[in-house]
Amino acid sequence: MDKINGGVTAPKGFQAAGLRAGIKEGSTDKKDMAMIYSEAPCVAAGTFTTNQVKAAPVKWDMHIVDSSNAVHAVICNSGVANACTGQKGMQYCENMAEVTADTLNIEKKQILVASTGVIGAQLPMDKITEGIKMLSSNLNADLSGGHDAALAIMTTDTVPKEIAYSFKIGDHTVRIGGMCKGSGMIHPNMCTMLGFVMTDVNISKELLTEALKEDIKDTFNMVSVDGDTSTNDTVLLLANGMAENPKITEKNEDYYEFVKALHAVNEFLCKKIAGDGEGATALFEVKVIGAKSKEQAAVLAKSVVTSSLTKAAIYGHDANWGRILCALGYSKAEFNPDLVDIYFESKAGRLKIVENGMAADYSEERATEILSEDEVTAVCDMKMGECSATAWGCDLTHEYVSINADYRS
Amino acid sequence: MDKINGGVTAPKGFQAAGLRAGIKEGSTDKKDMAMIYSEAPCVAAGTFTTNQVKAAPVKWDMHIVDSSNAVHAVICNSGVANACTGQKGMQYCENMAEVTADTLNIEKKQILVASTGVIGAQLPMDKITEGIKMLSSNLNADLSGGHDAALAIMTTDTVPKEIAYSFKIGDHTVRIGGMCKGSGMIHPNMCTMLGFVMTDVNISKELLTEALKEDIKDTFNMVSVDGDTSTNDTVLLLANGMAENPKITEKNEDYYEFVKALHAVNEFLCKKIAGDGEGATALFEVKVIGAKSKEQAAVLAKSVVTSSLTKAAIYGHDANWGRILCALGYSKAEFNPDLVDIYFESKAGRLKIVENGMAADYSEERATEILSEDEVTAVCDMKMGECSATAWGCDLTHEYVSINADYRS
Repeated sequence: MDKINGGVTAPKGFQAAGLRAGIKEGSTDKKDMAMIYSEAPCVAAGTFTTNQVKAAPVKWDMHIVDSSNAVHAVICNSGVANACTGQKGMQYCENMAEVTADTLNIEKKQILVASTGVIGAQLPMDKITEGIKMLSSNLNADLSGGHDAALAIMTTDTVPKEIAYSFKIGDHTVRIGGMCKGSGMIHPNMCTMLGFVMTDVNISKELLTEALKEDIKDTFNMVSVDGDTSTNDTVLLLANGMAENPKITEKNEDYYEFVKALHAVNEFLCKKIAGDGEGATALFEVKVIGAKSKEQAAVLAKSVVTSSLTKAAIYGHDANWGRILCALGYSKAEFNPDLVDIYFESKAGRLKIVENGMAADYSEERATEILSEDEVTAVCDMKMGECSATAWGCDLTHEYVSINADYRS
Repeated sequence: MDKINGGVTAPKGFQAAGLRAGIKEGSTDKKDMAMIYSEAPCVAAGTFTTNQVKAAPVKWDMHIVDSSNAVHAVICNSGVANACTGQKGMQYCENMAEVTADTLNIEKKQILVASTGVIGAQLPMDKITEGIKMLSSNLNADLSGGHDAALAIMTTDTVPKEIAYSFKIGDHTVRIGGMCKGSGMIHPNMCTMLGFVMTDVNISKELLTEALKEDIKDTFNMVSVDGDTSTNDTVLLLANGMAENPKITEKNEDYYEFVKALHAVNEFLCKKIAGDGEGATALFEVKVIGAKSKEQAAVLAKSVVTSSLTKAAIYGHDANWGRILCALGYSKAEFNPDLVDIYFESKAGRLKIVENGMAADYSEERATEILSEDEVTAVCDMKMGECSATAWGCDLTHEYVSINADYRS
């Protein structure tokens, strides 16, 4: 498996475009619409927010992913989330698919829709329609097409997030590329994590769906910037088969080769989202090892990575192990506090902070040195079993509060 | 039922003291030890942290409350939490009880112990021992005794928190008074909510325990400053019977009179804790009405009151209803988003923000006016039933981050 350049247009047969349609208020230059198109029809898999308040495009995509075996395109806008917009919002979402289908000369049930931005506002359909037409004439199979799309889905993200890998299935080279946006909320009504992963692998819908469902547990579901699960969260995985590998229809070697590449793409995107979380100065990774089960490890890791007190301590480069032990303790996962060891890790080194639930003999200065890097890891060894899990988040900063306390005026 | 002056020494037969033993580092004047003593033996009830990581005094008190029917005193220190301190910490906790028992000439199993402060550090037993001796000779039945105790348990609290009520049972005047401290963490390892409620009511241990267990659900368990459940949380309720009312042994009128007073004390203390949360500029109250069950209402209210995004918006005086609807949505409690109405309330007035899950026609200026008070309430009407619940929290501020990011050096 090799890392290659580009993002969603790296796989064979995918084109993309991103441009400004004028949906984002204020900013005069920010792109706000993206389109991804596959020459060949795709089997599609998706995972969506568990929030009971679901945005219109989430409801639309859940239906399309479920019912269609020939998805051709994804149309996405940033600036308005089309969430809490009632029947009218649902109609507008369908209109987005219709206009996209007309311009691309395909059917609306072959179109997936995604929106991110202000909750409660209706989409400016005139701008959306105009944007879709411009996008279709700007579709581009080069890396630049994918890059423009990655720029167009950004909200408070400070950097575009895209990645691609290639791997071999027999003599066939298979490619997989993805892009995503983080939970940006600089405009106090914005929320959403969107992920789009395209691949030219030839695979059955059943296995594509299972591969995504399984990998999400270890990647996107292990990310938390502020514990607020949005109304729009969506991850879409499209496979158009143009790599022409023998179709993957069972969990053979080929399947696991693909899963490995899918995981590499998802993990990269997740770490990018966490490290670029609102106001973040550092990526905070929590590794729980020695757990009784993978589920237990995941619950413990997420409890620590979402602890406001721990996140604030990471911002302060403070080896505040008491808060980590405290967060493990209220996670509801059962363990023996008197067994726990805790380490801090970063480029600057590794240090044992806690041994058997009590302070280890360590230097605060050395700990602060390790915690001053822009990627820090807390390793919690439960010493109860062989299972592990990793969660990604970021520190809690003054900037986070500033971003989210701002008036919408 | 009448509000009366004072706190834990308002009920008959209770004495208290608070002073500086030198446990809190740096500060030269902060009191850090408190003692409460009852002339007559008390029946005691207690509720304790659900965190699996339990401080030594929590383990001690759980045992005493369970096994003793003649509790005489509470000894408390701030500055060191005696949490994550292993066997030695457990021994020190027992020593605190022993020294207190000796100086008061009672038995150690009649003593309840509470600590709050740095996690992982051992108690300075020389200072503790000296402090206990001073406290015993300073015990005072006047309001000042209770007030000194309320001051001595403070950490980052900006104000002491005490309250007292009296009510009648037949011709007998019964008094109940309490004090508490909030979850202070200015020293980055500190955490704890401590509550002490004393009453001279004559009641059986069974009913005292049930009264506390039931009321906690609507009061202390509905408070959240930052979602981090500490290792030391403790609420103790002692009744010495000196009001000489006919002993309450069944759920009669007298019992419910007492429960009413207990609730008044607990609710007051909870609102004080929330409004005085770390860095808080406002008390944020969330009322969920029209829910199917009380349990559902409580889950929904707590989800909103703990949402970082909502708390930051409250800090910004921003009517950010999308975040409230979002927090209701990920609470796991089932409801119909298309029915929800949301109002903001404060001294400045009341405004409907959301109607049937969508933006109501309201003025942002008016909303900001209402949200600019130091006590603001969000009312969420689920329109699904008759049940309701209220949760208390505070806004998320720059000061909260500053407090909790500080180096411990």
